Amino acid sequence: MPQHVDTFLLELFAIFVWAKVFGELFEQLYVPAVLGEILAGVILGPHATGLVAPSDTVGSIAEIGAIFLLFTVGLETRPQDLLRVGRQSLRVAAAGVAVPFLLGFTYLHLKGEPVHESVFVAAAMVATSVGITARVLSDIHALNTREARIILGAAVFDDILGMIVLAVVAGLATGGSIRWIHMLVLVVEALAFAIFMIFIGPRLVGRMRTPLQRMSTHDAPLILALAICLGLSVAATRIGMAAIIGAFFAGLMFADYSPEWNLQPRVHAINEFLAPFFFFVMGTRLDIHLFTGPVWATAVIVSLLAIVSKVLGCGLPMLGEGLSAAAKVGVGMMPRGEVALIVALIGLQMNAISPQAYAVVIFMGGVTTLLAPPLLRYLFRNLEPETRPPDRLEAEMRKSRLG
Amino acid sequence: MPQHVDTFLLELFAIFVWAKVFGELFEQLYVPAVLGEILAGVILGPHATGLVAPSDTVGSIAEIGAIFLLFTVGLETRPQDLLRVGRQSLRVAAAGVAVPFLLGFTYLHLKGEPVHESVFVAAAMVATSVGITARVLSDIHALNTREARIILGAAVFDDILGMIVLAVVAGLATGGSIRWIHMLVLVVEALAFAIFMIFIGPRLVGRMRTPLQRMSTHDAPLILALAICLGLSVAATRIGMAAIIGAFFAGLMFADYSPEWNLQPRVHAINEFLAPFFFFVMGTRLDIHLFTGPVWATAVIVSLLAIVSKVLGCGLPMLGEGLSAAAKVGVGMMPRGEVALIVALIGLQMNAISPQAYAVVIFMGGVTTLLAPPLLRYLFRNLEPETRPPDRLEAEMRKSRLG
Repeated sequence: MPQHVDTFLLELFAIFVWAKVFGELFEQLYVPAVLGEILAGVILGPHATGLVAPSDTVGSIAEIGAIFLLFTVGLETRPQDLLRVGRQSLRVAAAGVAVPFLLGFTYLHLKGEPVHESVFVAAAMVATSVGITARVLSDIHALNTREARIILGAAVFDDILGMIVLAVVAGLATGGSIRWIHMLVLVVEALAFAIFMIFIGPRLVGRMRTPLQRMSTHDAPLILALAICLGLSVAATRIGMAAIIGAFFAGLMFADYSPEWNLQPRVHAINEFLAPFFFFVMGTRLDIHLFTGPVWATAVIVSLLAIVSKVLGCGLPMLGEGLSAAAKVGVGMMPRGEVALIVALIGLQMNAISPQAYAVVIFMGGVTTLLAPPLLRYLFRNLEPETRPPDRLEAEMRKSRLG
Repeated sequence: MPQHVDTFLLELFAIFVWAKVFGELFEQLYVPAVLGEILAGVILGPHATGLVAPSDTVGSIAEIGAIFLLFTVGLETRPQDLLRVGRQSLRVAAAGVAVPFLLGFTYLHLKGEPVHESVFVAAAMVATSVGITARVLSDIHALNTREARIILGAAVFDDILGMIVLAVVAGLATGGSIRWIHMLVLVVEALAFAIFMIFIGPRLVGRMRTPLQRMSTHDAPLILALAICLGLSVAATRIGMAAIIGAFFAGLMFADYSPEWNLQPRVHAINEFLAPFFFFVMGTRLDIHLFTGPVWATAVIVSLLAIVSKVLGCGLPMLGEGLSAAAKVGVGMMPRGEVALIVALIGLQMNAISPQAYAVVIFMGGVTTLLAPPLLRYLFRNLEPETRPPDRLEAEMRKSRLG
């Protein structure tokens, strides 16, 4: 075999193993594996020890990893669940998206950051990653509480709102200066895309059922889903959105049929292979030397704002049910995970945000994810110890994406 | 997103969809999808219409695809089955490897081809791809016949022998001139590798069971299997073998635990995504303009030799059981599939074989795969129609790799 294959394979092997080793170490300490995989990239990457400098090819594999990651998130966001979600969850999600965005944008704008950077960092402050919350609630047998049901319902809607915000923000950043008419077009475009995918997409997939059964190809539904994931990713870039937005909505389109066709565990397997490359590469792009005094200050303030704004935003609609319920829901919606990090990486790649702002967002993602579990355990400390065995929802959550 | 991401995703989408469309069309005509995926590459590639010229990045993804392909083949080759395989299967496999190799090498060498090219093409004539046979036997409810059991048993051993032959041949080709001492070292090395993986590998994996259960990482067995697949691929290139040999033996190592850990369907899903890129790229490397008179002649003769040598080699040890049984087993072992094609591609990449020889091997693979099913149906035409429902083995075979 030619020499390049040898080094390429060695690179794949090294990244995969280091990412997984750090991920396992973090899991042992009850910290999400994702943060470990990123830290592996930070430590081994060119800005620190320089042991692994990812090649362009690994960079491309990381891009596919991001696409499959969002495809999985979409697959787990069932449009049918949206209809079942109560009004309370919708209110929690909407306020939980609006408050962090406005607070984040206002702070950064007043601080004198460019508009592009302010909107991008604010957008990264929006997306809740509910996987870690679901796991904690499952561990303490709290999945059947009213607060847990509201959190899980709101998270579905939050994912979709987060994608719409990203679509608009990324569209704005490519357009140079911000014009209101441009923004209006982007909002309408993103909303139309979302509505089409939520209401019409699943029906189109439903209609393919009979033709798919007639196909000779084994695994025809999986192959169709993968093709549509790639196709919508390409389509999204064509209308000026990030590829991952297309992948997310492709997942959404297939979510209702995912159990019937056994899509989730198989796409998850593809993810298990590809995602570590994404998180590792994300880590290698983080220059730890950027953490000087002012950047530390910004990182701490942005993290505080991210916590306060989400707890306030999600807690306010819950105040009618008491302070404790409001706090539980607010803290449950606090962790920012993969999506926030991907938003930051897209901003970095588009040169819409500085490496410093990228570092700030990764810090914010880490802090909110680290703080949520102990706070949740504290808030739910008075829960009646449940004696009955874990139910279906619980079992499902155990397999959730951050599991 | 930067422009290159856009074109890269478009390239992925185009290759995936075209490969799968051609694959489905071929399946509808009862021809293995693999040949359709290769034809898609031939037609759309730079040597014909030139619509898709795979980038280096897609070439690297194709390499990963080949590795996962052989990893899957290994996962389906259980070392425990080897112990159960009767002596008759061992004899069939051994003669079925020796006769095609010797006949192929002798013909090409007498024809005046360089030694490297002769051994490589001969090595490609060795590996049986039993998936297509298993599917035909399953369709005609013949999986419980003695002949079917001998074929399926022999195929397990054939895979391993084929890998050893490839290891030796590829090692020889890198060494310049052929020296007997070098060849002896390679044979010993390859045999030691194979024996280690068959007898000691699975025990090492068995010992990891308890530690794996203690791990916090979800899917720990899958991740360990993927890491070892990449690791042994790298290790194989380091000791002068092809990466896919390492991947095959990594699969073998985990094969006994594959059902318990549900590895096969999940690795298969990764394969569903990556393999089309491999077969498509394989097709783009085939220059159809090379099929001039002399190349056609060689292609037809090599194909005839491949058929005759396999039928003779595998049939001879069966002659004691009658001409019909010998013919059934011989024809059942006839199809050459993925492994032959991969051997040819490795030869091309090492500059050990010419583009003409590459074209000849692909032609041979196609012909043997196309002819086996109708011949098998004819030979098994007198089979008592079975009335009982398909059994476990049959259900398993339906899910087999060419399914």
